[in-house]
Amino acid sequence: MTDRNIRVEPIDRLAVEDQEVEIVERKGLGHPDSICDGIAESVSQALAQTYLDRVGKVLHYNTDETQLVAGNAAPAFGGGEVIEPIYLLIVGRATQEYETDDGVTHHIPTGRVALEAARDYIDAHFPELEFGTDVVVDVKLGEGSGDLQEVFGEDGATVPMANDTSFGVGHAPLTETETIVYEAERRLNGEYHETNPELGQDVKIMGKREGDEIDITVAAAMVDAYVGGIEEYTEAVEGVREFVSKVAYEHTDREVNVHVNTADDLEEGSIYLTTTGTSAEQGDDGSVGRGNRANGLITPNRSMSMEATSGKNPVNHIGKIYNLLSTRIAEAVVDEVDGIRDLRIRLLSQIGRPIDQPHVADAHVITEDGVAISDVRPEVEAIVDRELADVTDVTRSVIEGELTTF
Amino acid sequence: MTDRNIRVEPIDRLAVEDQEVEIVERKGLGHPDSICDGIAESVSQALAQTYLDRVGKVLHYNTDETQLVAGNAAPAFGGGEVIEPIYLLIVGRATQEYETDDGVTHHIPTGRVALEAARDYIDAHFPELEFGTDVVVDVKLGEGSGDLQEVFGEDGATVPMANDTSFGVGHAPLTETETIVYEAERRLNGEYHETNPELGQDVKIMGKREGDEIDITVAAAMVDAYVGGIEEYTEAVEGVREFVSKVAYEHTDREVNVHVNTADDLEEGSIYLTTTGTSAEQGDDGSVGRGNRANGLITPNRSMSMEATSGKNPVNHIGKIYNLLSTRIAEAVVDEVDGIRDLRIRLLSQIGRPIDQPHVADAHVITEDGVAISDVRPEVEAIVDRELADVTDVTRSVIEGELTTF
Amino acid sequence: MTDRNIRVEPIDRLAVEDQEVEIVERKGLGHPDSICDGIAESVSQALAQTYLDRVGKVLHYNTDETQLVAGNAAPAFGGGEVIEPIYLLIVGRATQEYETDDGVTHHIPTGRVALEAARDYIDAHFPELEFGTDVVVDVKLGEGSGDLQEVFGEDGATVPMANDTSFGVGHAPLTETETIVYEAERRLNGEYHETNPELGQDVKIMGKREGDEIDITVAAAMVDAYVGGIEEYTEAVEGVREFVSKVAYEHTDREVNVHVNTADDLEEGSIYLTTTGTSAEQGDDGSVGRGNRANGLITPNRSMSMEATSGKNPVNHIGKIYNLLSTRIAEAVVDEVDGIRDLRIRLLSQIGRPIDQPHVADAHVITEDGVAISDVRPEVEAIVDRELADVTDVTRSVIEGELTTF
Amino acid sequence: MTDRNIRVEPIDRLAVEDQEVEIVERKGLGHPDSICDGIAESVSQALAQTYLDRVGKVLHYNTDETQLVAGNAAPAFGGGEVIEPIYLLIVGRATQEYETDDGVTHHIPTGRVALEAARDYIDAHFPELEFGTDVVVDVKLGEGSGDLQEVFGEDGATVPMANDTSFGVGHAPLTETETIVYEAERRLNGEYHETNPELGQDVKIMGKREGDEIDITVAAAMVDAYVGGIEEYTEAVEGVREFVSKVAYEHTDREVNVHVNTADDLEEGSIYLTTTGTSAEQGDDGSVGRGNRANGLITPNRSMSMEATSGKNPVNHIGKIYNLLSTRIAEAVVDEVDGIRDLRIRLLSQIGRPIDQPHVADAHVITEDGVAISDVRPEVEAIVDRELADVTDVTRSVIEGELTTF
Repeated sequence: MTDRNIRVEPIDRLAVEDQEVEIVERKGLGHPDSICDGIAESVSQALAQTYLDRVGKVLHYNTDETQLVAGNAAPAFGGGEVIEPIYLLIVGRATQEYETDDGVTHHIPTGRVALEAARDYIDAHFPELEFGTDVVVDVKLGEGSGDLQEVFGEDGATVPMANDTSFGVGHAPLTETETIVYEAERRLNGEYHETNPELGQDVKIMGKREGDEIDITVAAAMVDAYVGGIEEYTEAVEGVREFVSKVAYEHTDREVNVHVNTADDLEEGSIYLTTTGTSAEQGDDGSVGRGNRANGLITPNRSMSMEATSGKNPVNHIGKIYNLLSTRIAEAVVDEVDGIRDLRIRLLSQIGRPIDQPHVADAHVITEDGVAISDVRPEVEAIVDRELADVTDVTRSVIEGELTTF
Repeated sequence: MTDRNIRVEPIDRLAVEDQEVEIVERKGLGHPDSICDGIAESVSQALAQTYLDRVGKVLHYNTDETQLVAGNAAPAFGGGEVIEPIYLLIVGRATQEYETDDGVTHHIPTGRVALEAARDYIDAHFPELEFGTDVVVDVKLGEGSGDLQEVFGEDGATVPMANDTSFGVGHAPLTETETIVYEAERRLNGEYHETNPELGQDVKIMGKREGDEIDITVAAAMVDAYVGGIEEYTEAVEGVREFVSKVAYEHTDREVNVHVNTADDLEEGSIYLTTTGTSAEQGDDGSVGRGNRANGLITPNRSMSMEATSGKNPVNHIGKIYNLLSTRIAEAVVDEVDGIRDLRIRLLSQIGRPIDQPHVADAHVITEDGVAISDVRPEVEAIVDRELADVTDVTRSVIEGELTTF
Repeated sequence: MTDRNIRVEPIDRLAVEDQEVEIVERKGLGHPDSICDGIAESVSQALAQTYLDRVGKVLHYNTDETQLVAGNAAPAFGGGEVIEPIYLLIVGRATQEYETDDGVTHHIPTGRVALEAARDYIDAHFPELEFGTDVVVDVKLGEGSGDLQEVFGEDGATVPMANDTSFGVGHAPLTETETIVYEAERRLNGEYHETNPELGQDVKIMGKREGDEIDITVAAAMVDAYVGGIEEYTEAVEGVREFVSKVAYEHTDREVNVHVNTADDLEEGSIYLTTTGTSAEQGDDGSVGRGNRANGLITPNRSMSMEATSGKNPVNHIGKIYNLLSTRIAEAVVDEVDGIRDLRIRLLSQIGRPIDQPHVADAHVITEDGVAISDVRPEVEAIVDRELADVTDVTRSVIEGELTTF
Repeated sequence: MTDRNIRVEPIDRLAVEDQEVEIVERKGLGHPDSICDGIAESVSQALAQTYLDRVGKVLHYNTDETQLVAGNAAPAFGGGEVIEPIYLLIVGRATQEYETDDGVTHHIPTGRVALEAARDYIDAHFPELEFGTDVVVDVKLGEGSGDLQEVFGEDGATVPMANDTSFGVGHAPLTETETIVYEAERRLNGEYHETNPELGQDVKIMGKREGDEIDITVAAAMVDAYVGGIEEYTEAVEGVREFVSKVAYEHTDREVNVHVNTADDLEEGSIYLTTTGTSAEQGDDGSVGRGNRANGLITPNRSMSMEATSGKNPVNHIGKIYNLLSTRIAEAVVDEVDGIRDLRIRLLSQIGRPIDQPHVADAHVITEDGVAISDVRPEVEAIVDRELADVTDVTRSVIEGELTTF
């Protein structure tokens, strides 16, 4: 276990739940930055899967740089239209040619794989956005350094060496405010949308807690085809407000105030109406790694990594792996060990050593009243050790789309 | 009638049918240049129709500049794949904002109209080519000069003024070789393809007649998904050869030799196999106005206009109108008047005068033996006059897709 | 000599100089189509030279597809500005990797070579157009078919085989009208511009002769920085008119009327004023092969090839070579042989045979009064034979920039 | 003062200087992400200045989305070359048309201003990178929402209203490790480069402190034209190592180990050699907001904002203003008040209120031994208040390029 350099120590701050002011944000599925994150990650999965299918291992690639240029639209009650399409450029590196041991040279259609992944992602998640006409998708995938070759293949995974000093951080459990912000968006874009097609995918939620008062501010793009007039619009807004309130009170006993589309000016007719369900249709550009962190949230009260997780190669990109793994570890610890009020896991890589042997694996803990660090240390260490040993399962989960990255 | 400056005169050369050497070429539907012509013209029709639907008249636009950048493909018997997508850039000018008399400002989604037209055109004509993934279509439509406003609207058409010195030329009847080349491609891409899906759309036909011997050379892209092996390939090639021979002998009693895919080297495995049915998938770029003239042929034995007809605005672009109209006139004359062996109609515009009053309207005629020019002059003049008077019908026919431009 | 299939025959029409109506056009250096021709040809020369310098022979490439998308400008007396830059996309194929006999693999920077050629061309010819800011130049050069390898190298040139049925046509001598149109543009963009910087490069000249009356219509873009007001503008226009008149009367005794910028409406302030000297700055798109033929003119009275000559590989592209060579032959014949009033040279390739042995080499001649075809036939045949034998000198001349293509 | 909601409180953690493990990173001037940050911010400054010059106030714009697609290069001792150019796309929104009170409509050449700013930035900072040929720069600036109009003009600045809930955070003083990382990069790219042209601009520095041992890891791109062979390369690397050591010991008494280009494998010839001085030439893409925070560092031990500061409009983008302002406040407090060991300033905006009246203005302080919070509170409050009152000076400083954003 000493190889893993695991340290379990008290954290040097208040639990976030106990801090006076807390701020949390989540950019929903249809936010321009999230669209880029989602496409970058879909392209990554599709490339990894294609490599596995064709040559039995994941080759070098990195697609963490999608750029979205906003379009122009003319939304209107009952149904408006896109005037100028959104432009989306998929950027990255991907191996296009590879010779397998049997001497066969494989040509991997990386550009087409990327475009198909983007098309499938858009078709699956954005019912009002037509691939190719509402949004033009182009791709520039260069070749990377040819000597990089990654092994995550048919014979099982090998633990790669760290080739960079990189840092990952994960937290658990989520605070009430974090839980509300995260759940509200997920459920608005899930169950709520199913019966309320007027709600677009571009839902941005900001949570602010001061003491015991929580303000949840929602910016929710409405889809014009399902909104006949101003009254229907205000009903749609109220529907979102009520739903988010309901979700919130499932997770807290504190006072919660929900505000939806506060920038609207009904008299001026200035409302958040869209044709496609995303502000990318009109003036809001986006790119990868500018929004949610790997746990789906932006949490200034907590340590965050700058790493853009989406689109990175899950076989050997330490930043991606460590951010996802530290979050997974934190969740596992809190799930399995009693008495933990706040936990931060930090993993720091060591260049030239296998990634399951980090330079530092810190577990900073705040225990609940009556629980000492020493009470939980052995269990925590064991879980950290176990999860580090299973690091390649993060890679597998990412390729199979079981882990979200934004 | 004098306003129309119609002249009927003998031509100063042999009838093309009587010349010793004749060369004719047609780039078929799926040739990269023809793909561009077809999309440019589809975009033009869609814009014209959109303007008519929304503001009751055709506004200023011009979309005669589509550029195709070839992709990369790996065809294989039984089905290969596109490796790198084709890139297609629609270029031109189109009015995006227009205020109707009732004070309403209309925003015309010119970019989206263009993309939808391209998508529909590709879907309709290229079953093996998937819009958005096999071919990325982007669009750059700027605004043109704002003061140009065209009238072809609900109250009927006004004859516009010529704003340029431009020239159109049309011929009739087609020679035997021309007829064979034209018909062979049309019917290969029509009835033959219906029962022979292995034949792609990229069919290029070159006809050469020396004296009474006609050589027809066909380059026909085969679609790999329908070709299981080299034998099926040679059968497919032979099928095309036989069909073209059959078509040829419907139009001539001369000796005809048909050659198909002569560049093939079966032993080297170098054959004309494609995944999508067009050479645009692998190395052949294309653009508008580089292939067939308005009558669907390239005929070095005849006068040709350099004008790129496809994509131009059919309301006021004189080059487009005069090339289509002169062809229409030539065909009408030959259809209605007996005794004409060869006919060339030339129209030259006069800046500042209505386009139904050309500066010159030449009909150069070769009559059959025993027929004098003076015998046919009155009839020819009358038809030229009638068709010029009906010039705006060319515009209507183009917008409604009744006239082909390439 | 029989290998060359040379035929010298009477032409079956009037000399163009004797026809009743003649039309000639030249798109000057700064016309959007000519800009594309010029850049495509510059890129071609630079690539050929780079291949020669690095691997000792010209490799496979083809760059005949530049696309220009017009910008937006706000010209103003004394100096306006470009509002939106012109966009120019260089398209084609070029070999990027090549292994020489010594086993060294060379990486040819085709994209950068193309961009540098475009920059140098723009800097040399368009003093008012700044590369990179007034005009954004991008490049998409794919790889062509790898098995094509061309030999035009250090050990001297080999005559390549024809791999396509292609056709070239050349004419001489130029008529008076043709000469005037050609010379006027060349000299306006040469000596005249040197002392008259107010004249932009976008000079388009249309010549029309009816009987003995010649109309020369010039559209000349003026550069705003050198034009202080409406009076200076009219002086500039008058200057061009006088210069063109002078040039014209050096070549004809016929009556010549010169019209410059006839579309101007001085009262409305609608004049042909530009910031950069080309209409590409405002709404006029362009592409390769849409303008002048290989001899620099558009001549509907003569046979023309549809081939886009600029940008094609001069080693093995038969269309390019035969169009340039037939023009060169025609000029040589007229230069060396007395008594020829009009001459058309046509070369038709024969697939699979060396290109110095065409399928047909026609010299169609109109002799002057008192000269019989048989008088000139031997001399003409000898010159055609000589020039065909020297076909690879066309390649050399093109690479070294001695031959113009538009 | 109560309007400003200023709170001065103890921080709930150890001073970063006292924490056991500290990690700091700086992506230098030539890192692909920093190139994008730098260009985005230059474009922003140029647009702001252009608006001020032409219409007397800063209009709506936002240019925080530059995307860089890496090129391909073949570095070689003594001078290699760029094979495929870098592609850089400037993305954003900018007002192109504006009517001043005198009824004059101004057309702002936003695209050209952006391109010129990019050119000037590249020319000024990257001597080995040629604008337009080594790097193709394109621009897509759409119009934003037209009703947004900003006032920062000739009559002095107005304090704008917050239109978003946004958050800024600043820290002071820098720790020793932070100082070393920051200073080392700045001075390598400054004084060191002046006499050592072999050092490229792409210098990435990672600092790690464990207890009292500091590791500084530098990845420094060397420029091939100035490196004649492997010995010169190792000398160049050693030169950087010595210089950074020297800089480090100016700021600490702790033990410092400096590692430069540790990924090199000299025997394999795998070294960090470039032609242009940046890894963007070969495989490393980049975009805005993915690298350094507003204070020039990435500091996982401290609270960070996800906000991409570079390229944002400094008149009314609260995220940008508050991040820069909080840093400025922190620095001012530490500069003027004795006894502060660590300070974090957080500003949270209040929608609908002037931005000099934040919802929260937190100063979290760690005092030095023997100093109580109450001792410094009045001074700190006064400085926070003073700087908030002067918020529009941040805008001015940004426009005039006095403040760096990355």
